[in-house]
Amino acid sequence: MAVIGTGLIGTSVALAASRQGVLVYLSDRNRSTARTAAALGAGLARTPPEQVDLAVLAVPPSQVGTVLAEAQERELALVYTDVASVKAGPERIALSRAPDPSRYIGGHPLAGRERSGPLAARADLFRDRPWALTPSPVTSDAAFNRALELVALCGAVPVVTRSRAHDDAVALTSHVPHLLASLMAARLRDAPAGMSRLAGHGLRDVTRIAGGDSRLWADILQSNAAAVAGVVRRVHADMSRLVDALDRLAGPDGGDRDEGMRIVLELLDRGVAGLAEVPGRRPGDPGGGSAVRVTVPDRPGELPRLLGAIADFGVDSEDAAVDADGTGALTVGFTVRPVAAARIVASLRAGGWEAGRPNGAGPRFTEKVRKGDGIPPEAVSK
Amino acid sequence: MAVIGTGLIGTSVALAASRQGVLVYLSDRNRSTARTAAALGAGLARTPPEQVDLAVLAVPPSQVGTVLAEAQERELALVYTDVASVKAGPERIALSRAPDPSRYIGGHPLAGRERSGPLAARADLFRDRPWALTPSPVTSDAAFNRALELVALCGAVPVVTRSRAHDDAVALTSHVPHLLASLMAARLRDAPAGMSRLAGHGLRDVTRIAGGDSRLWADILQSNAAAVAGVVRRVHADMSRLVDALDRLAGPDGGDRDEGMRIVLELLDRGVAGLAEVPGRRPGDPGGGSAVRVTVPDRPGELPRLLGAIADFGVDSEDAAVDADGTGALTVGFTVRPVAAARIVASLRAGGWEAGRPNGAGPRFTEKVRKGDGIPPEAVSK
Repeated sequence: MAVIGTGLIGTSVALAASRQGVLVYLSDRNRSTARTAAALGAGLARTPPEQVDLAVLAVPPSQVGTVLAEAQERELALVYTDVASVKAGPERIALSRAPDPSRYIGGHPLAGRERSGPLAARADLFRDRPWALTPSPVTSDAAFNRALELVALCGAVPVVTRSRAHDDAVALTSHVPHLLASLMAARLRDAPAGMSRLAGHGLRDVTRIAGGDSRLWADILQSNAAAVAGVVRRVHADMSRLVDALDRLAGPDGGDRDEGMRIVLELLDRGVAGLAEVPGRRPGDPGGGSAVRVTVPDRPGELPRLLGAIADFGVDSEDAAVDADGTGALTVGFTVRPVAAARIVASLRAGGWEAGRPNGAGPRFTEKVRKGDGIPPEAVSK
Repeated sequence: MAVIGTGLIGTSVALAASRQGVLVYLSDRNRSTARTAAALGAGLARTPPEQVDLAVLAVPPSQVGTVLAEAQERELALVYTDVASVKAGPERIALSRAPDPSRYIGGHPLAGRERSGPLAARADLFRDRPWALTPSPVTSDAAFNRALELVALCGAVPVVTRSRAHDDAVALTSHVPHLLASLMAARLRDAPAGMSRLAGHGLRDVTRIAGGDSRLWADILQSNAAAVAGVVRRVHADMSRLVDALDRLAGPDGGDRDEGMRIVLELLDRGVAGLAEVPGRRPGDPGGGSAVRVTVPDRPGELPRLLGAIADFGVDSEDAAVDADGTGALTVGFTVRPVAAARIVASLRAGGWEAGRPNGAGPRFTEKVRKGDGIPPEAVSK
């Protein structure tokens, strides 16, 4: 295998492949970068003596087309892929200028770090991360399968998509988030002295990705400018409304303040709703399902004990809700996978808890279960 | 101690204090919320039988003034503090309406979670986090010291500041980051299907804090509207330039594209520079200091071995830079605290490495050190 470009991503791919016993040849425009990658154990910093099976082009998006054409002209590899964050532009150039576009398939591992260069590389950078593959209409099965092999070698999860759909998606999931992180971080430069003493983890998380390589990111943004501009324009419009709403909130007019509050609340609620689309946010979330409700005995220590018991079923205590029922007793409600609900209720009851499944779809516990009572079978089977 | 308001923050304060043996009385407008906190072991959900030493008002910013006046009228506590994220408004109301403003000191622990309510509470939520205290001109020493005791009880780090300076700082470090997270998350609602398969960790981090309680956050933003509007307006102006730059990059005119690239690059660079103000971002960063450079022997495994050796001195390998010197040998450069530099160089040399401190302030290793050679004393002492 050959890796062209031994920055963070190229070196990480090479490290992952080398660890699996693949012979990797490394090159980089900057020779000391390639030698650093080699010294880290990522492969050999020299030209392959014969044609390799696969060449991975780990160069900025704007250079993929040129580097591909050049590598194909010297018959470097049987098949070619790349790891650039933008896919439509490189594909267009491959189709129009590469000697054999059927031997090329676009690729993009959705992994990175706020640091760059070979020293930041990690063999496990791609483990369990999505890796987009964007076959063009002429991509051969041989190229496709070789790329799938590379993704497996790196422990990543392949996601097949068209290049244009990929670019629209990452504009939203990666490029615009990066710009917002940069816009926020840029504001900190004229922060008052001592400001950083009053910063929480939120600021660190929001701004983290702004630390990427500016030149590489400018290249990415340029290569996906139209899609990124579309999303940024919509954020900009929302922000215009927000500035207006904040001015109303800061002003003296009560009616204006009410209207400002309405706009701000609506924006915040839209944000909360949008979070449902972010993967990996709530690993404990069973993803909707059947409601279960348990009565908490009125003795010290029972609520923590119950939360411990439901945690054994994979329910995060923060996904539970506590309510007082009609008699004033506290009840804990939570949601589990429908197939698991009956088993969980039975286990809780076996453990001495008053557990049941509320009738109907509402969030309230409409059926009072007393300790020792049997739960009506129809309640369990619903 | 009395805690009024047993949401995430109030319950966490009560849990921390209870764990330290403090008797805590809990109350909340919503009785089942207070009883939930009590059932979690945060204290007793009842009215204190006599005046307590300290009352902690854990209510939204807009309610602090009213709740303080009401609590002081019934002589609930000797002294009072609050935990709201905005401080100037509550202080103004305390000074104008509370029966005895000298017994009140504003407080704000810089900790939180994207979840709310007592079930999300943690006794260690504040451990090692900053906790702002904002004494007013009339705050008594007794109130100040009692609040410092509470901060210590919670394992937090007190930061004393004026209420107006606090509010300007958190507009920048907390309130505007929250709004940007919400604006980004709101965009995901109209995302194309399958988009979430192509999301990296960056999106999750940028949007995480958007998951907070919308009503509480709307209250916070309203209470600090003028300061927040000032920062948002500047972000909005930067974003206007960004939209223009992206349009140029997407357009057909080469000169326009160059200008677009310049604007985008300048914004990204400003973001990188601003990150220096974010605390906790690079825990391994020694915070500037003396440069050290080590030659890497040209044998397999030496670079990882060297990175391991410098890690023992607290230097993250990612903070190191690799260069080729004039003879083609790889050298590793990094920065350490000035007081530690001589000791680290000596230790590395004792370990068989060719280590030295470059003369002058430049980043290059201008002095070639051969294995076994003594390092000139003036190089070590500089």
